[in-house]
Amino acid sequence: MLSSCCKHLLLNVIPRTTTRRALSSSSVSRTARRVVFSGIQPTGVPHLGNYLGALSNWVKLQRTAAPEDELFFSIVGWHALTLPQEPTSLAKSRRELLATLLAIGLDPKRSVIFHQDHNQSHTELAWILNCITPIGKLRRMTTWKSRLATSRNANDESEVDESMLNAGLFTYPVLQAADILAYRSTHVPVGEDQTQHLELCRDLADTFNRTFKSSSPLFPLPSQINTTSRRILSLKDPSSKMSKSSPDLQSRILLTDTGAQIQSKIRAAVTDSIAGISYDPIARPGTSNLLTILAACTDEDVADVAKRYEGKGHGHLKADVAAAVEEMIKGPRAEFEKLRHETAYLDQVAKDGAERAMERSDRTMKVVRERLGLH
Amino acid sequence: MLSSCCKHLLLNVIPRTTTRRALSSSSVSRTARRVVFSGIQPTGVPHLGNYLGALSNWVKLQRTAAPEDELFFSIVGWHALTLPQEPTSLAKSRRELLATLLAIGLDPKRSVIFHQDHNQSHTELAWILNCITPIGKLRRMTTWKSRLATSRNANDESEVDESMLNAGLFTYPVLQAADILAYRSTHVPVGEDQTQHLELCRDLADTFNRTFKSSSPLFPLPSQINTTSRRILSLKDPSSKMSKSSPDLQSRILLTDTGAQIQSKIRAAVTDSIAGISYDPIARPGTSNLLTILAACTDEDVADVAKRYEGKGHGHLKADVAAAVEEMIKGPRAEFEKLRHETAYLDQVAKDGAERAMERSDRTMKVVRERLGLH
Repeated sequence: MLSSCCKHLLLNVIPRTTTRRALSSSSVSRTARRVVFSGIQPTGVPHLGNYLGALSNWVKLQRTAAPEDELFFSIVGWHALTLPQEPTSLAKSRRELLATLLAIGLDPKRSVIFHQDHNQSHTELAWILNCITPIGKLRRMTTWKSRLATSRNANDESEVDESMLNAGLFTYPVLQAADILAYRSTHVPVGEDQTQHLELCRDLADTFNRTFKSSSPLFPLPSQINTTSRRILSLKDPSSKMSKSSPDLQSRILLTDTGAQIQSKIRAAVTDSIAGISYDPIARPGTSNLLTILAACTDEDVADVAKRYEGKGHGHLKADVAAAVEEMIKGPRAEFEKLRHETAYLDQVAKDGAERAMERSDRTMKVVRERLGLH
Repeated sequence: MLSSCCKHLLLNVIPRTTTRRALSSSSVSRTARRVVFSGIQPTGVPHLGNYLGALSNWVKLQRTAAPEDELFFSIVGWHALTLPQEPTSLAKSRRELLATLLAIGLDPKRSVIFHQDHNQSHTELAWILNCITPIGKLRRMTTWKSRLATSRNANDESEVDESMLNAGLFTYPVLQAADILAYRSTHVPVGEDQTQHLELCRDLADTFNRTFKSSSPLFPLPSQINTTSRRILSLKDPSSKMSKSSPDLQSRILLTDTGAQIQSKIRAAVTDSIAGISYDPIARPGTSNLLTILAACTDEDVADVAKRYEGKGHGHLKADVAAAVEEMIKGPRAEFEKLRHETAYLDQVAKDGAERAMERSDRTMKVVRERLGLH
């Protein structure tokens, strides 16, 4: 599904050994220093799937990063425009997502947290990369192909007429590459559904380096940080991912949900009529989804959790899941409720983040322009 | 030919009556005020065809514009990237083109003369417009179709595989629309070969206005100022336009050519063996081209000029053409030779122009972002 693919570049964390850490902090080596970029679209309050699949990993990454690592977390408003957006909602989502990022524990002093649409260098670099991107490569992107299929409810992609789809959807993998390369990022945490986009980004970095040669290549070829991301499913239809776009509000838990709402939604979650509890994502997707959520909340292995509930019933499991979710999100939720009204503070965070982002990307763009002959 | 189509948005001048002028200067009406945008690609020293077809018209426009009219003349470096460029040459062309624009008489105090690539708002707006541009419209652009054909030396456009062409070429009409709309331009002087691009620009302006409604439409739908532009032909092959890309240096006169070079090139110009002189572009393209050049230099009607030479020979005509061209370009040429070395002055002009352009486009972009919900 493109709607989820393009929502964010999923992030995960490489476990760091003590040796690596010690080395890093004692001698700040240019080659060892990581520059990590990740983005999320402002299309509504994040739900539990967003949080466990991506956002909580950003926080872990911030906690475990070496001191010399640079971290860029961006709210990518320009990507949201590839699908129709209601302007008032978009403006609200954009502000609230910033409050959410702070509420879950991202620290604007440690990480560069900013709105993509505050830094025009992303679109400048996207234009430049457009000029070295064969359109054949864009047409082969599976997200584009699935979008084509979805646009016509067609089963066979070859049947679909692409002419009505917009050029933003077609070229957004190039803007994504620009998002990453503007900071000369070395690491991009993405889910498997984004592997092809990161491949394109690496291709474009390499093409640029070879076409506009100098003493040293300008762009690192960013590495994928593969994620064993937790795939959280819909509470009402465990055959699909938990999604912002599902019309059924009971299918997802928002980070702003109250304890009562969480209890009610978990209690109504679709499971099965098999006695006892076991982890079997194929035969028991709903039950397994609850176990996945519980394991994620308590940071345990799902098999261990499943073992504890073997002889118990769904009611017991559901009560515990609801309690664990409430326990996990009550802090961020309270913080969010406080922060969302602190408009002046949020504006200042966004402004500072944009300045730091621009300071970094200005250095990249200066070299880009020189290598192109635009100076 | 795309190579000429995308070189510049040809400009022409609406003759202004005294009444219109008097009205304009006595009551500065918002509706009557024109905002004119035109651009030229920095791909080498302009030749006589560029000068007579477009650049000299910019100067006339500057002279005849009403005081309240705003004039934007841009060196569009980002468009040049859609074809491969040698970075050192591009940098040189970019600087020399600015010197040329000043040398021919454009006044940086009256007109906003600037490098497109100094104003990132062009690429930001291009991204936004991409998101409301159906790719079917881009595929129907005749410049894209002819580029497809050219890329394969194919006669039949349907045979051509587009996959190797770059996304910059595919979407450059959208960047062109952004160039125009960033200044809320009301008038765009273009040659007939650019009519389709201006139609796209109007479509996008209208779509934006309707999709992101407010009390008033944001973008004027820019009018085409149709040009009866002087089509100057190759001196060696009068079946095609005078072109920067022809390998035969004798086929074109550059604005930097010396009097001796001009004489030599005109003397060697291909004409015909018919006795006497007459204006007949079909049967006598070479002879007619010389008459067109002469009429352009002396600002006369070509029929009047042809009449004067009826009983004379090609030698006589060629001598007069060479003298007239020399007379016309010697001032600009001398000025160019002086200016090209005044690096600090040129940098200052470019900087001032960019600041004025940005001041204007910032006002547009502020409203664009508010209407989209990116604020």
